[in-house]
Amino acid sequence: MNILAFGEVLLRFTVADKMLLEQTDDLHLSTVGTGVNLLSSLAHFGYDTSILTVLPNNPIGKKASADIRKLGISDKKVIYQGNSISSFFVELGQGARPQRVTYQDRLASSFSQMKASDYDFEKALSGVDIVHICGISLSLTDQTREAAFKLAEMAHERGKAVCFDFNYRNQLNKGNTHLMMKKRYQKILPFIDIIFGSKRDLTDLLDYQEKDETKLYRKFCQDYQINFFAGSNRSFVEGKKYFAGFLFHDNKIYHSAAKELNILDRIGSGDAFASGILTGLIEKWDFDDTLEFAIANSVLAQASMNDSPIFSREDVFNYIDYEGKNDLIR
Amino acid sequence: MNILAFGEVLLRFTVADKMLLEQTDDLHLSTVGTGVNLLSSLAHFGYDTSILTVLPNNPIGKKASADIRKLGISDKKVIYQGNSISSFFVELGQGARPQRVTYQDRLASSFSQMKASDYDFEKALSGVDIVHICGISLSLTDQTREAAFKLAEMAHERGKAVCFDFNYRNQLNKGNTHLMMKKRYQKILPFIDIIFGSKRDLTDLLDYQEKDETKLYRKFCQDYQINFFAGSNRSFVEGKKYFAGFLFHDNKIYHSAAKELNILDRIGSGDAFASGILTGLIEKWDFDDTLEFAIANSVLAQASMNDSPIFSREDVFNYIDYEGKNDLIR
Amino acid sequence: MNILAFGEVLLRFTVADKMLLEQTDDLHLSTVGTGVNLLSSLAHFGYDTSILTVLPNNPIGKKASADIRKLGISDKKVIYQGNSISSFFVELGQGARPQRVTYQDRLASSFSQMKASDYDFEKALSGVDIVHICGISLSLTDQTREAAFKLAEMAHERGKAVCFDFNYRNQLNKGNTHLMMKKRYQKILPFIDIIFGSKRDLTDLLDYQEKDETKLYRKFCQDYQINFFAGSNRSFVEGKKYFAGFLFHDNKIYHSAAKELNILDRIGSGDAFASGILTGLIEKWDFDDTLEFAIANSVLAQASMNDSPIFSREDVFNYIDYEGKNDLIR
Amino acid sequence: MNILAFGEVLLRFTVADKMLLEQTDDLHLSTVGTGVNLLSSLAHFGYDTSILTVLPNNPIGKKASADIRKLGISDKKVIYQGNSISSFFVELGQGARPQRVTYQDRLASSFSQMKASDYDFEKALSGVDIVHICGISLSLTDQTREAAFKLAEMAHERGKAVCFDFNYRNQLNKGNTHLMMKKRYQKILPFIDIIFGSKRDLTDLLDYQEKDETKLYRKFCQDYQINFFAGSNRSFVEGKKYFAGFLFHDNKIYHSAAKELNILDRIGSGDAFASGILTGLIEKWDFDDTLEFAIANSVLAQASMNDSPIFSREDVFNYIDYEGKNDLIR
Amino acid sequence: MNILAFGEVLLRFTVADKMLLEQTDDLHLSTVGTGVNLLSSLAHFGYDTSILTVLPNNPIGKKASADIRKLGISDKKVIYQGNSISSFFVELGQGARPQRVTYQDRLASSFSQMKASDYDFEKALSGVDIVHICGISLSLTDQTREAAFKLAEMAHERGKAVCFDFNYRNQLNKGNTHLMMKKRYQKILPFIDIIFGSKRDLTDLLDYQEKDETKLYRKFCQDYQINFFAGSNRSFVEGKKYFAGFLFHDNKIYHSAAKELNILDRIGSGDAFASGILTGLIEKWDFDDTLEFAIANSVLAQASMNDSPIFSREDVFNYIDYEGKNDLIR
Amino acid sequence: MNILAFGEVLLRFTVADKMLLEQTDDLHLSTVGTGVNLLSSLAHFGYDTSILTVLPNNPIGKKASADIRKLGISDKKVIYQGNSISSFFVELGQGARPQRVTYQDRLASSFSQMKASDYDFEKALSGVDIVHICGISLSLTDQTREAAFKLAEMAHERGKAVCFDFNYRNQLNKGNTHLMMKKRYQKILPFIDIIFGSKRDLTDLLDYQEKDETKLYRKFCQDYQINFFAGSNRSFVEGKKYFAGFLFHDNKIYHSAAKELNILDRIGSGDAFASGILTGLIEKWDFDDTLEFAIANSVLAQASMNDSPIFSREDVFNYIDYEGKNDLIR
Repeated sequence: MNILAFGEVLLRFTVADKMLLEQTDDLHLSTVGTGVNLLSSLAHFGYDTSILTVLPNNPIGKKASADIRKLGISDKKVIYQGNSISSFFVELGQGARPQRVTYQDRLASSFSQMKASDYDFEKALSGVDIVHICGISLSLTDQTREAAFKLAEMAHERGKAVCFDFNYRNQLNKGNTHLMMKKRYQKILPFIDIIFGSKRDLTDLLDYQEKDETKLYRKFCQDYQINFFAGSNRSFVEGKKYFAGFLFHDNKIYHSAAKELNILDRIGSGDAFASGILTGLIEKWDFDDTLEFAIANSVLAQASMNDSPIFSREDVFNYIDYEGKNDLIR
Repeated sequence: MNILAFGEVLLRFTVADKMLLEQTDDLHLSTVGTGVNLLSSLAHFGYDTSILTVLPNNPIGKKASADIRKLGISDKKVIYQGNSISSFFVELGQGARPQRVTYQDRLASSFSQMKASDYDFEKALSGVDIVHICGISLSLTDQTREAAFKLAEMAHERGKAVCFDFNYRNQLNKGNTHLMMKKRYQKILPFIDIIFGSKRDLTDLLDYQEKDETKLYRKFCQDYQINFFAGSNRSFVEGKKYFAGFLFHDNKIYHSAAKELNILDRIGSGDAFASGILTGLIEKWDFDDTLEFAIANSVLAQASMNDSPIFSREDVFNYIDYEGKNDLIR
Repeated sequence: MNILAFGEVLLRFTVADKMLLEQTDDLHLSTVGTGVNLLSSLAHFGYDTSILTVLPNNPIGKKASADIRKLGISDKKVIYQGNSISSFFVELGQGARPQRVTYQDRLASSFSQMKASDYDFEKALSGVDIVHICGISLSLTDQTREAAFKLAEMAHERGKAVCFDFNYRNQLNKGNTHLMMKKRYQKILPFIDIIFGSKRDLTDLLDYQEKDETKLYRKFCQDYQINFFAGSNRSFVEGKKYFAGFLFHDNKIYHSAAKELNILDRIGSGDAFASGILTGLIEKWDFDDTLEFAIANSVLAQASMNDSPIFSREDVFNYIDYEGKNDLIR
Repeated sequence: MNILAFGEVLLRFTVADKMLLEQTDDLHLSTVGTGVNLLSSLAHFGYDTSILTVLPNNPIGKKASADIRKLGISDKKVIYQGNSISSFFVELGQGARPQRVTYQDRLASSFSQMKASDYDFEKALSGVDIVHICGISLSLTDQTREAAFKLAEMAHERGKAVCFDFNYRNQLNKGNTHLMMKKRYQKILPFIDIIFGSKRDLTDLLDYQEKDETKLYRKFCQDYQINFFAGSNRSFVEGKKYFAGFLFHDNKIYHSAAKELNILDRIGSGDAFASGILTGLIEKWDFDDTLEFAIANSVLAQASMNDSPIFSREDVFNYIDYEGKNDLIR
Repeated sequence: MNILAFGEVLLRFTVADKMLLEQTDDLHLSTVGTGVNLLSSLAHFGYDTSILTVLPNNPIGKKASADIRKLGISDKKVIYQGNSISSFFVELGQGARPQRVTYQDRLASSFSQMKASDYDFEKALSGVDIVHICGISLSLTDQTREAAFKLAEMAHERGKAVCFDFNYRNQLNKGNTHLMMKKRYQKILPFIDIIFGSKRDLTDLLDYQEKDETKLYRKFCQDYQINFFAGSNRSFVEGKKYFAGFLFHDNKIYHSAAKELNILDRIGSGDAFASGILTGLIEKWDFDDTLEFAIANSVLAQASMNDSPIFSREDVFNYIDYEGKNDLIR
Repeated sequence: MNILAFGEVLLRFTVADKMLLEQTDDLHLSTVGTGVNLLSSLAHFGYDTSILTVLPNNPIGKKASADIRKLGISDKKVIYQGNSISSFFVELGQGARPQRVTYQDRLASSFSQMKASDYDFEKALSGVDIVHICGISLSLTDQTREAAFKLAEMAHERGKAVCFDFNYRNQLNKGNTHLMMKKRYQKILPFIDIIFGSKRDLTDLLDYQEKDETKLYRKFCQDYQINFFAGSNRSFVEGKKYFAGFLFHDNKIYHSAAKELNILDRIGSGDAFASGILTGLIEKWDFDDTLEFAIANSVLAQASMNDSPIFSREDVFNYIDYEGKNDLIR
């Protein structure tokens, strides 16, 4: 199984020792992005993965590629052009103090400035079974939008399974209006087979009026011929946090049990869920097992540092089997 | 609004990685003190602040000044004299293992040895609206006591609002007896407008016998013409820690709701509360809002490293608004 | 009181910042082992302790000795021979993600390869009151087994109190079968006075059939003339972890209360319990007090980094006295 | 003496432990820029300094301001607008391996995007004696160029001493041609009193043909009514590095002795030299003393980490006095 | 060009901050080995590389694989078996204090215990142009020796270019005698095309008597039909260290100029030289250029941390072109 | 051989990463002092050592004791009393930028405040062969002076070899005048057998007028019946630093060769020299060999972090034998 992700790669600067940025000069760098996170997890589940992105041809771009390889993702399709990579800072949270994420400019990056016509999508798609496209591309620049549309269309035409996640961020590009964003999503959806999102993406972005969740998803999947629709959410009950997910397929909705969260670093929780779902679909597991696996992968990822999950299938199954059991004393 | 604090500045050596001091050689340094903590928070709420203290004229003193500036406090009134700064070690806690604080000698420091007559209080008070004096000065040396009395008196005479916090530490100076300490506090109280303390300060230090809390505070405030009396406390219920506070004014007591604590570093919690209260009084907020703001500032501070709170008003309001809400998945 | 421990010393590489090993290159080294952990705690309770082990005669062995001394243990009986020390990696856990321990080869170490005949046990036992032998020695190599048997026998003959902990790890040496391991334990038990273990050690390793716990321990202690049998265990109730222990003596079983755990690093919890029990027995404390002290020592140790407890008696008593009390605000 | 600098503030990410970026994830952050570096040094020499720049109104901008204050520079004139700050990575060198600097995009930053008309230069100049403008502003965007021209003109008209350093970087903005850059420098030079640059700036950028150094500088200073022209350079002789400088004034050139360099971090060497020269001019020192002081400040700065010099006058004089003397043994 | 290396992979623990191991607990981990080092450099020069080795199937083995991928080397041929990986500690040197390397046991590792018959060499060689075998395999165990012989023979028969480096370490396995080692080297040499070693390898290990260097190499290369023989050495002249190399081919010896060394971390200098030589041979560069490139790559590597060179061709050419030139001041 | 040192123990805070204190919050702690340094080295040369000092009875004092034990020194004679330990900050140097040491107050420490009458010197001296007293005790307080005199006298009377080093620091205690200090040194000298100092100590402190070095030492040793007088010094020639020493005995002066220094951390160089001299005297080595050994030990110590040398005899001999030899390439 060979999976390609198209998307922005970012540098993440994590402020050390649970400090606030204003308090320290020590940062830990990691290379992340929805595509990177998803592929990292899928690579650790045993699949061949590669990323299609653009990095600057300098030591920063080379560092990002080295990190990508370390995560188990092939960097053979990375294009080196332009002079910048997007970045953001993360201040880890503690109890009531939330994790805080602050982005730098994302529109001047090598990825955001790369013209759609400069990609060789035909070559990038060769040998690939599944293509993942991140919705962020629809919010960045005209170049990234055009590239996303073109890749989605070409992959769809060539019979690849096309995954997409909403990742709706209207505020990323000040020029974006609600209407413009809605049209862009509507334009890409006909090419998609598997989609990750939330109820709110359908109601707030796509202006669906349906209140009943099952009917809503049914209508949406029919409208765009979506095969699978899945999503996850965090909830807060009596001072505890929980994580749960759903999977909609063939007119039917499946819900996972909610698992308690003990968060070390919450970023990438949706990507960890998505890679778990994709693994279940690839392996044709029962949908309930698939959801349990996806939630477990995400709960583990949220109890770990950095965005990119690196758990093996055994790690996830162990967590499912032994969670909360009494343990021996050494 | 221009606020001056008078008090001891200390070096804090935090043992790294939640280790015990005996286990590691890695320390994180920060520059702290009741005055520093209070002003840091007030500076981040948008006020002009400056500290009146004494530091050694060497790289250690210069480091402390640089840290003070970084916190947003003016170091223009710092006096460089003597050859030492007080210090303490902090070993962070975990669960049942409490945070442990160990002080080095505090009586030989530049601040403790500075004669009251060597200060130019007239100049220090120029342009200042509020003066804060920390009760620790009453426990250290004859020099610090005399300076505190003189400054309180001069500020009061010049119509400045004078704040004071009890911070009662009898054991600091072995020569101190209960009677001596009581007299010292009684001597400074007539100059004070706003005071931070606890019920216990009144009963144990000042020997008030009144059991009813409201009556007790009423009597105390009448005796010394105190305008505002406020305090906070930590409680422990069914394995969880909570933080709450009160504000007494004009014969009436106001209580905050108790907020759950998830402590990363508990030092400075009272200073964070005090700076929140002062902000509410300056801004003439409703007393309940003032208490909610002060408690929130302190809860956030206790969920953060180091003594000195650096949250903006927006940070505190965000915590109040969104605390415990369900959140979205990225 | 002079206590000697015989056993394997290991290097522990703790992965920094709660990361997974695959995520970082930063490691913290500590020198550990059941004997080291136990003696470290006993040394901090005020006893003379020394370790009998074998280390390579190179900078790695010298580092281990320096660490042992730092823990308060005499290294005068350490033998320098061979060329290796065993090691393991620790990835700290968070919430649902368990702490993970991965061992490197333990059979090629200086300790595992040292012949029993090369020890001078007579000299090692001189001046010693209590000898502790770790059951791991029975799982490693023929050399460590023979040394353990010989030392146990000689110490017993010379009237020393001999302690032993099961620490049953069949999988350590692939050549070990259940039957072989059972016979080895049966061979050493007649020399033992105080033993640390669990119900499962008796049923699964020694094949006792008795279900009733008190009867089981009675039978076992009678069979081998064991004076004291003690053990601890971790349990999981409604999302919380608890720690409790028992002590069996003179046909009677004593149980501690269960204390809630907030784990920073769980390794060495049994050693912390054992050193607490030994202290109670040495000091001839009431058995309930002994258990409370041992549980408290272990709860504190599990809330601290590294295997080797370094709490003083005062630290443990303070925890017992003040645990969960409301505290003052600075 | 009150000095204002106008210019870009950048985040510098220094790769830890003399590693290459590809080898580690540990970074040290510092806040730098020609203006920051110059003012930091001048503040440590005892002058009042403030920076006029634009930072994003988020935790990153606040961090930069905190760092600026820590360096002794007032942040009262900082404008918070836009959403980004420029940044670069530094890999420290060792022997033959040169220090490597890699920039991210600098044109999308808050500073680069701030319109000249949005500054209140009148207010910014109030109370200021000397204004420093960095030539980088001429290479970035139309906005930064216009702001630099306007500020230079206004400061000149109001009788402030205006300093400028060439810092010629044609490649910064791809749209820049040699001719365009030349015209921009020619446009600002008539407003300048003190200028930092090199022979090459005059010959390569401004197309002067004169070969004789003294004549060249004379012609240049006459053409634009420049009062002082100074510059520094690094040379390499028999495996050793040296640092030297010159100062041209009133038709006469002064040369410093060359000092051997032992570089820890070479960035900011020109800024350290410039702040030394300015100090000599402010204090009306002899020109030879001024050059010796400026070279010493820069040699010390290059033997220290980070761009921004923080040496006091005493530090610099001590270095001049005791350099290379035999020292005592403790 | 596709290059395969066969050999031991080791964990390197570098003691932090130029400390001695006894002084600190902070270690930096890296994954190294002659094969890893050589391939890392070749991958950064643009070739496809993969390593044939054996790692434990646990988080330690997975960490090593992740590091290998990060260096640009394919881990697809890594075999997961056994339970250990070799390791060593490095204490960096300073001036007269030499860098110190201390190995742990290397014979119990997964690699040392893997049977030759368990490798699928046929598959490993498919698609490969050049095979590199490290001489360490001849010193470890019977299994590694047999595997090395078999791989060398099979690669030679299939027309691959076979490289070998002496890396003679008699003391690694106490069972090794001079005669045994000599015979083992004599057994593998007939399959080798390119060999890295020193004069001393020929005289001390292989007992050649010839004193004249050129004649010696001629005889050796004729005896075993070696196509290329190359080596490097460090020399010490008047307090400075220099690095130089030679290449023997077709009866002729070529010598590089000696370059001054400024060592940060000297390990892997021979591997950096070898990868430079191989690159020159692959690209059919002039032999003098090849030597200059190889020496430059090694000088840069010795001025960098860790064993594995990660310089690009551009980095090496830049060093050759600009070394020792005067530079500009920013 | 059993050696006791009497003296102040200090905490040393080393600023991390060659930064200046003002630049960073990261500190490395070590426990040092002339006695600690000397004994650490002697312990690593194989002797039994113990320190007689006073530490606070709190986690800071316990940390210091743990560090002392780690260095191989017995802490059985440490007295826990008072509430403070002296401390200083170290900023490491680079090239022209000198290492900078800044002390905090040293007169309020547990050691400085301990009364001479509270020591049990009789017990402390039992079993001891050599006693070392540091001259710093003569500069601190009346208590430390009296204790030093009493111990020197008692040790002398009991036939112990008494060592002393001048370590003349007049400025430590502002009350000290030249005359007072001279008298104090004159008072202790009659009890001393072996003394470490410099020519300057004799001329500047003791007011000797003799210019000829040999005659000067002869006169001094005769005046006070000193058996051995030794000292070391650092010199600076053509940009390089050198280290050399002398030993005066029986009317004859011996000089070492000067060794080039490559300093990482220069503190403790005199202590490393002294421990080398003492070792030579204990072992009755030839005086030239003794000096070479002492110089080598100090050169190695200055090329290492921290004050306390931890080199074994083999380390020192290896340095002497192999220094500057050409080495092999791995």
